[in-house]
Amino acid sequence: MSEVDRFLNQPVNWLKSTGPESDVVISSRLRMARNLKTFHFSGRLVAEKRADLIREVGDVVRNSNFLKKASYILVDGLCELDRQFLLERHLVSRELIAEEGKCAVAITPDEMVSLMVIEEDHLRLQVFQSGLNLLETWRIADEIDTELEKKLEFAFDATLGYLTACPTNVGTGLRASCMLHLPSLVLTKQVHKVLQALSKLNLAVRGLYGEGTQASGNFFQFSNQITLGQPEEEVINNLEGVIRQVITHEREAREYLKKKRKSKMEDQIWRALAALKAARLMSSSEAIQLLSLVQVGVDVGILQGQVTHTDLNQLFLLIQPAHLQKTNGKELNTTDRDAFRADRIREYFSKVVL
Amino acid sequence: MSEVDRFLNQPVNWLKSTGPESDVVISSRLRMARNLKTFHFSGRLVAEKRADLIREVGDVVRNSNFLKKASYILVDGLCELDRQFLLERHLVSRELIAEEGKCAVAITPDEMVSLMVIEEDHLRLQVFQSGLNLLETWRIADEIDTELEKKLEFAFDATLGYLTACPTNVGTGLRASCMLHLPSLVLTKQVHKVLQALSKLNLAVRGLYGEGTQASGNFFQFSNQITLGQPEEEVINNLEGVIRQVITHEREAREYLKKKRKSKMEDQIWRALAALKAARLMSSSEAIQLLSLVQVGVDVGILQGQVTHTDLNQLFLLIQPAHLQKTNGKELNTTDRDAFRADRIREYFSKVVL
Repeated sequence: MSEVDRFLNQPVNWLKSTGPESDVVISSRLRMARNLKTFHFSGRLVAEKRADLIREVGDVVRNSNFLKKASYILVDGLCELDRQFLLERHLVSRELIAEEGKCAVAITPDEMVSLMVIEEDHLRLQVFQSGLNLLETWRIADEIDTELEKKLEFAFDATLGYLTACPTNVGTGLRASCMLHLPSLVLTKQVHKVLQALSKLNLAVRGLYGEGTQASGNFFQFSNQITLGQPEEEVINNLEGVIRQVITHEREAREYLKKKRKSKMEDQIWRALAALKAARLMSSSEAIQLLSLVQVGVDVGILQGQVTHTDLNQLFLLIQPAHLQKTNGKELNTTDRDAFRADRIREYFSKVVL
Repeated sequence: MSEVDRFLNQPVNWLKSTGPESDVVISSRLRMARNLKTFHFSGRLVAEKRADLIREVGDVVRNSNFLKKASYILVDGLCELDRQFLLERHLVSRELIAEEGKCAVAITPDEMVSLMVIEEDHLRLQVFQSGLNLLETWRIADEIDTELEKKLEFAFDATLGYLTACPTNVGTGLRASCMLHLPSLVLTKQVHKVLQALSKLNLAVRGLYGEGTQASGNFFQFSNQITLGQPEEEVINNLEGVIRQVITHEREAREYLKKKRKSKMEDQIWRALAALKAARLMSSSEAIQLLSLVQVGVDVGILQGQVTHTDLNQLFLLIQPAHLQKTNGKELNTTDRDAFRADRIREYFSKVVL
């Protein structure tokens, strides 16, 4: 039994589609970068100092109001599968699981907060919420930050603000992001126009798993680029304002599709559902594409009562390679994974009527 | 009520998959070309003479033992939809329905025999059988030919044999063909090798609707090329011998797929069935492709008990454009046809369990 197994069969709270605007915005996430004044930056930390830092942060976590129930996991002690599993749940970053030295993560039981220790910066705090709810992620992050700052001395410069390993994070050390589902903008081929407009507003667009990953299955992660010279609330309000516009565009595109391309859209949605109900082999990228189309079906009212957003969001997670292998209880090669994934998906959709 | 409507809701006997080797051979067809000595060839027949010829042949048909119950239909009097309908049932040729002058066809109630009048030749007799049964088509055609020859004087040369409008048919005037379903040779990419070997044996390979059409949905029509200098039985035996070899290859490929690519094949078959159960829009070429895969499913035992060859063969026919429109009771544009086709197919497969 591994330390991370407790999360396996629990639904992810911030994927429950209970938050505002959750027909378009899957989730909101706030990430905050902090470094301890008393240690070198992560890249220059020797093994002994890494252990000291992890111990020191661990003590603070255990005595914190917010984080005292968190699991404090030594990531370098996990097997490859468990690391991938945490990555698929967005609880750790690609960078953290690639670390060669000691590193750790604190995860609250509800998975709404994770605190990575010795990533690019000493501390990377992540707070998740369902739907469009950046202000709440900021409120929570701010409280945890304040609490941590009472016990840990953070590297801070009166002019620049919080100091970080990479200059692009200096200042607030804050990155706010939302995961959006924009199938109708993709289907109506308007998404590139929207993305181009966003890049002019200093916003970044990425795929399901953050930096360096491509948008897939109509999912797009929007985040702020600026961390310097703007107060946190302003950054968050700016991003939320832009996202509200994107939501409006996506909803307009949905209405357009419902009115003008009804039969074509219905055809695609029912076929997607059918493939999910029938396939014996399925890659994760195909599954994401098809589940995304089924989600459109729910949004436009075609599959209402049969499938829910909440279930689909959980399924997106369960069909990822590490989740599949942990469910299966042992490692699987790609072909076996494709077969096991198809089995899980068929089982899930077995009661849904075509 | 049109003259051809009587055929609409009747299953086609030679598509019933009751004949020999019907897991691979859909049907056998024998075509015989004859011309009347007392008339110019079709291309040079004036309108008045065309009418005379149709009348003369009509009298013989009505007094014939074999054809007396046949419908004798003036093809030039039919609307475009009805002509297409007969073409889809293989009862007339593309050439016949493109004729600008008067022309006719006699069709027996069971649709096993059709006699086209004023096609490229004055008479084109077609005899169909289910499965690989060329000798039976030849036996029937020979009897009808003998009967017709008692009343009609055929153009015949003691050296050359029967004279025909096109020199490629001179001699026996006979073309024997079989429609084969070769999905496994296609899936294992061996079909081109097989087709190349056949072309060296003076056999022609065509698509579902004969000359000038491409093979689609894994269906291939094999026929003899030689009509001169070979007795009919020899032509038929040669063709049948080659077809038996192709059957062996196809069956070997099926066994190979069942053993070596089981999950990939099952995946394709179930997905095909799912698409048929779910689509809201479907072109006829996609439908043929998918139905062909479902047929593979029946052949390898996956869908046994749920779907039969007989039903699938009838469905292949019912989803053709003219059949759809006649079922619908009025003409439909392409998009409406794709929707109506998908509806019919969904209805058909509604009880089949994924």
